[in-house]
Amino acid sequence: MPDPLPPYRTTVQSAWLDYNGHLNEAYYLLIFSYATDTLLDAVELDAASREKHQVSAFTLETHLCYLAEVSEGAEVEVEVQVLGADEKRMHIFSEMRRVSDGAVSATAEMILVNVDMTTRRTAPFRPETRARLDAFAEASRAKPWPERAGRAVRGVRPAAAA
Amino acid sequence: MPDPLPPYRTTVQSAWLDYNGHLNEAYYLLIFSYATDTLLDAVELDAASREKHQVSAFTLETHLCYLAEVSEGAEVEVEVQVLGADEKRMHIFSEMRRVSDGAVSATAEMILVNVDMTTRRTAPFRPETRARLDAFAEASRAKPWPERAGRAVRGVRPAAAA
Repeated sequence: MPDPLPPYRTTVQSAWLDYNGHLNEAYYLLIFSYATDTLLDAVELDAASREKHQVSAFTLETHLCYLAEVSEGAEVEVEVQVLGADEKRMHIFSEMRRVSDGAVSATAEMILVNVDMTTRRTAPFRPETRARLDAFAEASRAKPWPERAGRAVRGVRPAAAA
Repeated sequence: MPDPLPPYRTTVQSAWLDYNGHLNEAYYLLIFSYATDTLLDAVELDAASREKHQVSAFTLETHLCYLAEVSEGAEVEVEVQVLGADEKRMHIFSEMRRVSDGAVSATAEMILVNVDMTTRRTAPFRPETRARLDAFAEASRAKPWPERAGRAVRGVRPAAAA
C-alpha cells in the first residue's frame, strides 16, 4: 500500500471571489486542479518525470458538485482518491472541505488521460505510474464508494418537453 | 421567442495556461462562467436586477467535457443554451469553439439555482426571470438535444473491483 496522500491545503484568495462575494465556481476547480497535481507528483507524473519521459496527464471529463459557499480567507483541504485506472486513464474523486468546520464544500470526479508530449496524443502510462495508480486504487477499495461518483446532471426540462 | 443570445467571445490569456502550455481546466470553466453571465444578463439576473431585487444565481452542479486543447492567444466563443427551468433551477448547456477553425474545445452542462441574497437560501425565480428562461428553453427545443447532456463520468475501475 502506498502512503496515503496528505490532503492538499490552501487559503482562498480574494482574486478567486466573484460578484456573489464567494469562491467562484471556476476557482473551486483551480483548487481541485492543484490537488490533482499532488496525486500526479505521487505517481511519477511530477515535473521531473514529465520532463524526462515527455509525458503528462490531461483532464478529459469532470463532474463538479457545489455543496457550500466558501469565503475569502477560508482555509480548505482537498482529499484526492484514485477510484480506478486502466492502461492510459485514471478515474479520481476529490472532496473539498472547509478546515474550520469540516463541511464538504464541493466534490470533483475526473477522468485524466496519459499523454505522450512529443505527439500530444494519448498513450499508455509508464509501468511505474500504472503500478502506483493501481496501488492507490487498491487502497481506496477499503473506503465506501463516494456517494457523488458516477453522477449525471438531472435535467429540469418542463414535462411538456419530455 | 427571445432574441438569440449572441455567443460570448474572449481571447485566452497567458495567466490561464498551465505547465502543459495550454488553457488550464479551471480556466475553461472561468470562460464558461463569464458566458453564463451573458445569459443571466438576458433573464433579469443582471447586476442592476441582482442589486434591486437582492437575488442571484449559484451553480449547483457542472459537467465538463474537454475535447481539444486551446492555446494562448486563441479566440474562443461560447454558445449558451437553456435546456429547461423549473420554479427555482435552470439547466443550461454551453459549447466552446475555437474561432479559428470552429472546433468544439469543450462543453459544460450546469444546474444553477436562484438565491435570495438576503438569506443566501434558494428561492423561486422572479416571474420575469422565469418567463425569459422558459422562452429560451422553448427556443432550444428547435435544436437537437446536445449529445453530451446528461452524461456521467464512466469509471475505469479494474474489473476485479466491480
